[in-house]
Amino acid sequence: MFSHPALVVEPWAVRERELHLDVLAQTESIFALSNGYLGLRGNLDEGEPHGVPGTYLNGCYELRPLPYPEPGYGDPESEQTLVNVTNGKLIRLLVDDEPFDVRHGELTQHERVLDLRAGLLTRTARWRSPGGGTIQVKSTRLVSLTQRPVAAICYEVSPVEGPVRVVLQSKLVANEPLPPRPPDRHGLVRPPPALVPERSQDSSAGMVMVHRTATSGLRIAAGMRHDVVGPGKPRLQPDRGDDFARVMVTAALAPGQRLRLVKYLAYGWSAERSPAALGDQVLAALTAAQASGWDELVRQQRDWLDAFWDGADVVVEGDPVIQQAVRFGLFQVLQAGARAAQHPIPAKGLTGLGYDGHTFWDAETFVLPVLTFTHPAAAADALRWRRSTLPAATARAAQFGLPGAMFPWRTITGSECSGYWPASTAALHVNADIAYAAWQHVAATGDRDFERDTALPLLVATARLWRGAGHHEPENGFRIDGVTGPDEYSALVDNNTYTNLMARRNLTAAAAAVARHPEQARSLEVTAEEVAQWRQAAAAMVVPYDPRLGVHPQSEGFTQHAAWDFHRTRPDQYPLMRHFPYFELYRRQVVKQADLVLAMHLCPDDFTAAQKARNVRYYEPITVRDSSLSAATQAVLAAEVGHLDLAYAYLAEAALIDLNDLNHNTRDGMHLASLAGAWTALVAGLGGMRLRDHGLSFAPRLPRRLDRVAFRLWFRQRRLEVTVRAAEATYRLLTGAPVAIRHYDEELTLTQSPVTRPIPTIAVGPAPAQPPGRPPGRGRHAGE
Amino acid sequence: MFSHPALVVEPWAVRERELHLDVLAQTESIFALSNGYLGLRGNLDEGEPHGVPGTYLNGCYELRPLPYPEPGYGDPESEQTLVNVTNGKLIRLLVDDEPFDVRHGELTQHERVLDLRAGLLTRTARWRSPGGGTIQVKSTRLVSLTQRPVAAICYEVSPVEGPVRVVLQSKLVANEPLPPRPPDRHGLVRPPPALVPERSQDSSAGMVMVHRTATSGLRIAAGMRHDVVGPGKPRLQPDRGDDFARVMVTAALAPGQRLRLVKYLAYGWSAERSPAALGDQVLAALTAAQASGWDELVRQQRDWLDAFWDGADVVVEGDPVIQQAVRFGLFQVLQAGARAAQHPIPAKGLTGLGYDGHTFWDAETFVLPVLTFTHPAAAADALRWRRSTLPAATARAAQFGLPGAMFPWRTITGSECSGYWPASTAALHVNADIAYAAWQHVAATGDRDFERDTALPLLVATARLWRGAGHHEPENGFRIDGVTGPDEYSALVDNNTYTNLMARRNLTAAAAAVARHPEQARSLEVTAEEVAQWRQAAAAMVVPYDPRLGVHPQSEGFTQHAAWDFHRTRPDQYPLMRHFPYFELYRRQVVKQADLVLAMHLCPDDFTAAQKARNVRYYEPITVRDSSLSAATQAVLAAEVGHLDLAYAYLAEAALIDLNDLNHNTRDGMHLASLAGAWTALVAGLGGMRLRDHGLSFAPRLPRRLDRVAFRLWFRQRRLEVTVRAAEATYRLLTGAPVAIRHYDEELTLTQSPVTRPIPTIAVGPAPAQPPGRPPGRGRHAGE
Repeated sequence: MFSHPALVVEPWAVRERELHLDVLAQTESIFALSNGYLGLRGNLDEGEPHGVPGTYLNGCYELRPLPYPEPGYGDPESEQTLVNVTNGKLIRLLVDDEPFDVRHGELTQHERVLDLRAGLLTRTARWRSPGGGTIQVKSTRLVSLTQRPVAAICYEVSPVEGPVRVVLQSKLVANEPLPPRPPDRHGLVRPPPALVPERSQDSSAGMVMVHRTATSGLRIAAGMRHDVVGPGKPRLQPDRGDDFARVMVTAALAPGQRLRLVKYLAYGWSAERSPAALGDQVLAALTAAQASGWDELVRQQRDWLDAFWDGADVVVEGDPVIQQAVRFGLFQVLQAGARAAQHPIPAKGLTGLGYDGHTFWDAETFVLPVLTFTHPAAAADALRWRRSTLPAATARAAQFGLPGAMFPWRTITGSECSGYWPASTAALHVNADIAYAAWQHVAATGDRDFERDTALPLLVATARLWRGAGHHEPENGFRIDGVTGPDEYSALVDNNTYTNLMARRNLTAAAAAVARHPEQARSLEVTAEEVAQWRQAAAAMVVPYDPRLGVHPQSEGFTQHAAWDFHRTRPDQYPLMRHFPYFELYRRQVVKQADLVLAMHLCPDDFTAAQKARNVRYYEPITVRDSSLSAATQAVLAAEVGHLDLAYAYLAEAALIDLNDLNHNTRDGMHLASLAGAWTALVAGLGGMRLRDHGLSFAPRLPRRLDRVAFRLWFRQRRLEVTVRAAEATYRLLTGAPVAIRHYDEELTLTQSPVTRPIPTIAVGPAPAQPPGRPPGRGRHAGE
Repeated sequence: MFSHPALVVEPWAVRERELHLDVLAQTESIFALSNGYLGLRGNLDEGEPHGVPGTYLNGCYELRPLPYPEPGYGDPESEQTLVNVTNGKLIRLLVDDEPFDVRHGELTQHERVLDLRAGLLTRTARWRSPGGGTIQVKSTRLVSLTQRPVAAICYEVSPVEGPVRVVLQSKLVANEPLPPRPPDRHGLVRPPPALVPERSQDSSAGMVMVHRTATSGLRIAAGMRHDVVGPGKPRLQPDRGDDFARVMVTAALAPGQRLRLVKYLAYGWSAERSPAALGDQVLAALTAAQASGWDELVRQQRDWLDAFWDGADVVVEGDPVIQQAVRFGLFQVLQAGARAAQHPIPAKGLTGLGYDGHTFWDAETFVLPVLTFTHPAAAADALRWRRSTLPAATARAAQFGLPGAMFPWRTITGSECSGYWPASTAALHVNADIAYAAWQHVAATGDRDFERDTALPLLVATARLWRGAGHHEPENGFRIDGVTGPDEYSALVDNNTYTNLMARRNLTAAAAAVARHPEQARSLEVTAEEVAQWRQAAAAMVVPYDPRLGVHPQSEGFTQHAAWDFHRTRPDQYPLMRHFPYFELYRRQVVKQADLVLAMHLCPDDFTAAQKARNVRYYEPITVRDSSLSAATQAVLAAEVGHLDLAYAYLAEAALIDLNDLNHNTRDGMHLASLAGAWTALVAGLGGMRLRDHGLSFAPRLPRRLDRVAFRLWFRQRRLEVTVRAAEATYRLLTGAPVAIRHYDEELTLTQSPVTRPIPTIAVGPAPAQPPGRPPGRGRHAGE
C-alpha cells in the first residue's frame, strides 16, 4: 500500500501534484496509455529516471525455455513472454548546457493528469536547471483509440524567466538499457529478450526501424514523424544507428516564445510480412496520423470516449474516492480491450510485464462481462481471438487424449505457458469460463452472427471436452475428477462444485446453440447423438452438497478437511503461499479466492437463497483473498444475501487495488480483473444484475454510505440506465426499442419514460467475519 | 529386455562367456562390486571401451541447483547427486607395441564370472594383438567386505604363443573423461560434477590423491599400492599429475612366464578432515590391506560370505533360472548394505548413477526387510543413518508447520532432493515406512537397545507427524487428507488407505515403544497426554471401504473414478507417464504400482481373507507395473489368496529385472528394491511369512512348477530354516534357543529337531487378469 501522497481525488481524472521518485514505477503503471494494441507506460518523456520503461504491442512475444525439476509428459517446453519493443516515447531536452533531469536542478512545479474523458495524459513541469535557466514543459500524450497503430505526443517548452537555448532530441530506441531485473517467476535472473536489428530507414515520410525477436522470429516496426513549430523555423536533424533513430531540433527561446514538437508514432508487428512491407505499413500509418494532425487526433479521442461513457458511465454519489476509482478502472478495462484486434487481453493489459503479458481465465470471467455490457465490440473481438486459438486448444486436448479443446491456463499465442500443471492445466474450468463468456455475450447482445461464427465453435469444442473429461458413475452421476477449481489453495480435487456447475452450463448452452444453428453445427460434425450425450451429462452432473452443514463443499470432501489455523498465522505471513507450502494449503479449509462463491454469482439459479446465505457465512471466514480475483465476487454475493456494508467494503478493495497499490505490485501493471470487478461489484453486487437467456434482472440495494448509484449499459442494442437510491430504483431506456427487464420479482417493460420501483427490505443477521486480520479494506493487503 | 546372449545359468555365479559391446553398460552394472561403502562398476580393467565408468563412495555427493518453472515455498533449491570419484580400477596393458583393447586385435576367449560365494569378479581373456602377440589376462577383483575402505585387483598376464614384451600401467584417475551424457532427470545436459585437485603424494607407502567437490566441499582421497611378481624383478615406476597417479611396470615374458600385479586400493571421504589427515587415513588402510595380502583378502571375503549364506541362503528347486536370480539379487542387496556404515542405501546401491544415487522409501520398505532377516547388522546400520537425519527431517516438518519429523522423498544427506512435490513431499507415507522398518527390525531381532536408541526416536518423531498431519473430523474419524500414496499414478488424495493403515501402525507402535522405554521417552519429551492422543488418532483412523463393490478403494473416491481405457493404449505407450500426462493418469483408475495391495501385505490383519481376495481381483486388472516396486508385492498377495502361478510369475519378473534388463535401464544400476522383492516374493509370498509383535508365522504353498523352496533366516538371535514342498513344510531351528512360530493356525515350538506339517489346500477361482499386454513375464516390460 503506498497511499500515494500526491494523487488528487477527482471525478474524471487522476491527478498527481508532486513527483515522488520512490513510487515512480507505480505511477508509470497508473498513467499508462493503451488502446489494447499499443501500450505505453507512463514513463517520463526524457526517459530517465524511470521505474520500469515499457512499450508493448499486444501479442508480440519472445519464446523462452521453461526449466523443470522433473519434466513430465505434456509440460510445455517454452513459454511466451511479452516483449518490451522499441521505445518511441523518448523526447530528451537540453536546456542551455544541462539535460532536463528531474533528479538535478529544481522541479518547482509538477503535475500529471490522466483525463478519463479526453483519453490524454498531460504533464506540466517547471524546472530550473543547475545552471539557472528556467523552463516550462507541457507534454500531452495519447495512444489513439481511433487510429490503432498510432500514438502521439505534443511536447512544448518555453522559458519562464530569461531566454534559454534548448535542444530537443526525439528518439526511437530498441534494446534500451534497463535497470537490473529481479528474479522472474522461475526464480531466474535473465536479461530481457534482445531484438535483432533488421532495417532502418529515414526519409521525408519518417524514420522507421525494423527489428526481429531472436527466437520467436516476430518482426517489429516502429516509426516516427514530427511537426515542429517555433521561432526561427527550427529544422529537424535526423541520424540513426542499428538500435536508435533520432531527430534533433534546436531553438533559442525568448520569454513568451515556445518550441512545440508533435511526435507521431506508429507501430506494427508481424510473423509474416517482410521488413519492407512492415516498414511501409508503419509509414502509411504515420502519414495518416500526420494528415489528421494533433488537434484532430485529440478531437477523435474525445469523441470516441464521449460515445463510450455515454453508454457506460457509472455514478457513485456519496463516496468520491470510489467514484474516481470505478471510472479509472473502467477506463483501464477499456484501454486494454478497445482495439485489441483479436489479440488476447493480458492480465495487466499493456501496462506492465507482470505475468509475462499472459492472459488467463480472468479475462473471460472478470474483464469480458464488463466489456460485453459497456463496449460489446471489444468483448466480441477478444472472444474471436479465443476462437482463433481453437487449433492449439484442440491439439492440446488431443495430446491429453481428450476430445474437443483444452484452452491454456496462461498464454499469449494460445499455447500453454504454465510449468506447474496442478494449478494450471488441471484447472479445466478455464474452458467453461470461455464458454460462459461466449454465451453471455450472445445473451447480452443478441448477436446471432457472433453466436454462429464464434460462440458456437467455442461452445461445441468445450462441451466435447467436458463430455470426455467427465464420466457417468454407475450410481453417483456424472463426475469430473482430479481438477483444480478457481481457488488456488486447493488442487486436483474431485467434483469441484464451480467446475461442475459451469461445465453443466457449458453443455446445455452448447446444446441450445446447436439447436439454433443446425447448419453450422453440422459443419462442426455435431450429431444428435452427441448433443443427447451432452444433455445426459448435464442432467446427471454431480453437485456436491454437505447436508450436515447445509452448505455446498467447494469440492467433494472439502468440508471434511482440517481447518486452517488462522490464530497461528501472523499478519506478515500473507500471501500464504509465500510462507506455507502448497502441500499444507491444499489439504486444509483455506481459500485463496472466491470459488464456490463465484459459482453462486455465475450460476445463480443453482442455489436457493437460503443456501447462498449459508454458503456465504461458511466461506467468508476461510477466504483470505490472497488473490485479487476475489473481493469483487465476494462483494456480489455479500450484496445478494444482504450484507451491504461488507459488499461495499469489498467493492472498495477491488476498485482501489492499483490507485492505493494494495498488493504492492502495481509497478508490474494494472490488476485488470480487479478493476473490472469493481464495476461488477457495483452493477451485479449493488445493482443485483443477473443475465439469463431470457433477459436481464436487477435486485438493487444500496449500502448506507451511498446516496445514489447509477450505471449505464448496453443490452441487445439498447442503452439502459439504472439509478439506485436507498428506497427506490429507476430504470430508463436511453436508446433503442422497448425491452423487458426484471426488478426483483416484477417484470418491467422499459420504454423512454423512466420506471421507478421501491426496493424491498431484507432481513439479515450480522455480517460474517473474515479470517483474523483479513477484513476488506482500502489500505491493507498482500496478495497477487 | 536384452536376454543377454552369453550369460550362463548357474546356481552360485553369473558367468558371461562372450563379450558383447552393445550390452557393456548393462554388464558393468551386473558385475559391479560393492560393500555398501565403496562401489566399483564392472568396467574392463583397461578402461576402454566402457559403457558408464563408475566408482562411488556412499554418501559422497555434489550439490546442483534445482530449476523450477514456478518455484513454490518449500521447494528445495538444490539437490545432491552421487559423485563419480577417482577411478582406481584402471590397469592398462601394452602388448609389444599395441594397447590391449578388445575393439582391436582378436579376443579369442572371454569370460567374466561373478562368484556369489567368493565375492570375486574374475575375468579371463585371451587376446591376439594386431601385431600378432598373444596373451592371456586374468584379473580378479574384490571390494572387501572385511576391510571397508579397501578394494583389490590381482592382474596376471602371460604369453600364449611366443614371447611378448608387456607394460602395465596402473592408475588413479580423477575427472575421467566420460562419454556424452544424455539429458538428466531435469531434462538438462550437464557435465558431471568436477573434482578440484588438492594434494597428491607418492611415497613408498603408496600414491594418494586428494580432491574436493566444488560446491558441497567434500574431500575425497584415493590411494593405491602394489605388489608385483614377475621375471627379472620388475620395477615399479611412478609418476603423477593433478588428476592422475600412475605406476608402470614392464616385463619381457617368455611362454610359461607370468607378470602378476596386485593392486590395493583404498578410499576415504570427509566433510571435515584435512587433506593430510584424509591422505594418512587412506595410506593406513592401504598398509593394512597390503599387510593382509591378496590371498588373505580373498580368504576373508569367502569366510565372511560363507557366514552370510549360512543364515540367508534360498534354495529354489525346479527352476535354475530363478535359483540363480534370487541368489544374485540377495548378493546385490547384501553388497549395497553390508558395510554402508550409517550411510543410506541408494535405490541402485553403488552400481550406477540412476536416480542420482538417492535413497527412497523403497530402501526401508523393500530392502531393509531382507537385511533384517538375513544380515540384521546392515539393516540396523541403515536405520541408524535415518535416525541420524532426524534433525533435517525435524527442520523440514517445522518448515511445513508440522510437528515431529518429515523425511525426504529422495536424498543422500537427509534433506529433500525432489522438485516435484505432489509425487514426493506429499507422499507422507515415507514416514510410516521408516517407522515400520524400525518396528520390524525390533520385532524380528528382539534388539531392545536398538529399539531404545534408534527405533524409539524414529517412531516418536513420525507419530508426532501423523498426529499433526491428520485431524479428527466431527463425525467421520481421523482423516489424513491431501497426500500421495505409493501408487505414483495418483496424487494428493484424501485418506489413502495404505497411508492411513501405516500411520495407524506407526501411532500404536510408537505408543508401545514408549511404554517399553519410559525413561528414553521422557528425554524425548513424550507425555502421557501425547501418547493418549496417538492412540485416539489410531483408534479413529479412517479406513475407506466401498461397500457397493466390497473392496477397499486405494483412497477416498478412487473406485468412483473413471476407468483407464486400456483398449486404446498401445503396447508402446508403456510406461504410461512417458505418453500420457499425470493429469489424466491421476484422475483415472490406473495404478502404477501396488498400493492398496502393499497395504494388505504390510498390514495383514486389517483385512479379512475374503476382502484380500476381492481386492486382489479388483486391483490386478488396473495395475500396470510401470514401476519395479510392484511385482514382488503382487506376488505376495497373489500367493496369499491362492493364485500361485501368478505369484510365481511375479516373483520371476522381480528377480529377473536386471539379469534380463526388463526395464531397459540396468545400465544405470541395479533395481535393488525389485531384487530384494524377489526374496520377499519367495519368503513372504510362497513362504507366507508374516511378522507380528508376538512372533513369526508361515503359510507356505508352492506353485506347481517348483519341487522345493527352502530359505534360512535370522529371527531373534536364532537361525531358522524353512523347507516347503508341495504337500508339506518343514521347520528347523539351526542355532539358538527354542522359539515358537506359527504354521497356518498352529503354533509350533522349534527346537533342533525338524518339525514337518502338511500344507492345507485352498480353493480359488481363476486368476485375475492383468491389463491387456501387461501380464508378468521374464522378458517384457518397460517401466522405471
